[in-house]
Amino acid sequence: MIVRLLWLFLLFAPGVRAGETTYTAARPLVVGVVLFADFEMLDVFGPLEMFSLLDERVRIVTLAATPGPVRSRNGPAVIAERSLADAGALDLLLVPGGFGTRRAVDDAAFVYAIARLGGQAPQVASVCTGAALLARAGLLDGRRATTNKQAFAWVQSQGANTAWVRSARWVEDGRFATSSGVSAGTDLALALIARHFDRTTAERVARDAEYLWNASSEVDPFAADAAPATR
Amino acid sequence: MIVRLLWLFLLFAPGVRAGETTYTAARPLVVGVVLFADFEMLDVFGPLEMFSLLDERVRIVTLAATPGPVRSRNGPAVIAERSLADAGALDLLLVPGGFGTRRAVDDAAFVYAIARLGGQAPQVASVCTGAALLARAGLLDGRRATTNKQAFAWVQSQGANTAWVRSARWVEDGRFATSSGVSAGTDLALALIARHFDRTTAERVARDAEYLWNASSEVDPFAADAAPATR
Repeated sequence: MIVRLLWLFLLFAPGVRAGETTYTAARPLVVGVVLFADFEMLDVFGPLEMFSLLDERVRIVTLAATPGPVRSRNGPAVIAERSLADAGALDLLLVPGGFGTRRAVDDAAFVYAIARLGGQAPQVASVCTGAALLARAGLLDGRRATTNKQAFAWVQSQGANTAWVRSARWVEDGRFATSSGVSAGTDLALALIARHFDRTTAERVARDAEYLWNASSEVDPFAADAAPATR
Repeated sequence: MIVRLLWLFLLFAPGVRAGETTYTAARPLVVGVVLFADFEMLDVFGPLEMFSLLDERVRIVTLAATPGPVRSRNGPAVIAERSLADAGALDLLLVPGGFGTRRAVDDAAFVYAIARLGGQAPQVASVCTGAALLARAGLLDGRRATTNKQAFAWVQSQGANTAWVRSARWVEDGRFATSSGVSAGTDLALALIARHFDRTTAERVARDAEYLWNASSEVDPFAADAAPATR
């Protein structure tokens, strides 16, 4: 009897498995977004806009090595509310890309923090060269993933044990979802909304944002921009 | 001779007329973006992403009633670098929308500051309900303009002397360009890049952002979402 109750608890307890929680104002989907110097603006704000349109059913938490302002590439600084070490429980970890990833992949403490958070979160998503950070953190070992087509060779070099997909708007493998460049993150965010809420909600969000959702993960109009394979 | 030199100076002097300056690292296009409490994230960061991809040929300046952090609707706070009163010379004033516009239109000092900056800037653009702020500032009097289709009736009520266009991705009238909701601002930004740089540059920027540019101002997939006309 106790075993059966325990089993029922595990089955229905919130947050036990991705895709099985009903997110509400009382139990919102917690999206933690990682900021670092020279992050790419739209990698962050495209997805966050879509999640924000779920109103109180989503809570967005900005994270960085230390709390405070973090400058985007060639644009405004955004406030990180919490440190990576003090992120709290996340339902979704979102890792953007941008030129800043070139430096960030060699920041051992930063990569370790990504590995720790990404190891815990039931859903991990990257946009653009954010996949290089997940790869360096070892999170994409043995998995399929994609990234920005113009930076493909460099990202590929950061994850030797990953099956890099050359043509995909985004790739989902288990709890990891990696998108192609910049705007592709917005399309992936809507796919994650469809998964964690439902398809109708995702379509409503796209309409509220007057966004033409490229809803197929396999249609990649920019695959041809990929540099020739280097291996 | 002196008259001819003066004429040549006026013809070739930088910044004399919109669309005639060649923007370079030494003389970048200065984009001033207005922030206010509960601005809509993508209204700001969709356009700024596109401008940021012009690298040192664009300088982005964030503006608010007072410098410091400004909270977006349901998302991160962004740092305003300068006050509206101390904006300096702008080539393009960008006014986003969002739920915050409902309060902001009744903030007389804020609307006055928009009127002053919008009266001076050679190019003024709004996204979504940002058009309500331009309208209240009197900047759209006698002009054609558009806005978010879901908020159409409310925005319309803020500008009795404006010819509101019910179906348009964006509308350009003289130095004013107003876009439909949220994502439409990104399409307008690319059109402004085509105008102030050239079409090839705009297409390159869209490709760098892996963005499928909805390049026609007249194709409005969301016009049907407009509430019935109230007048």
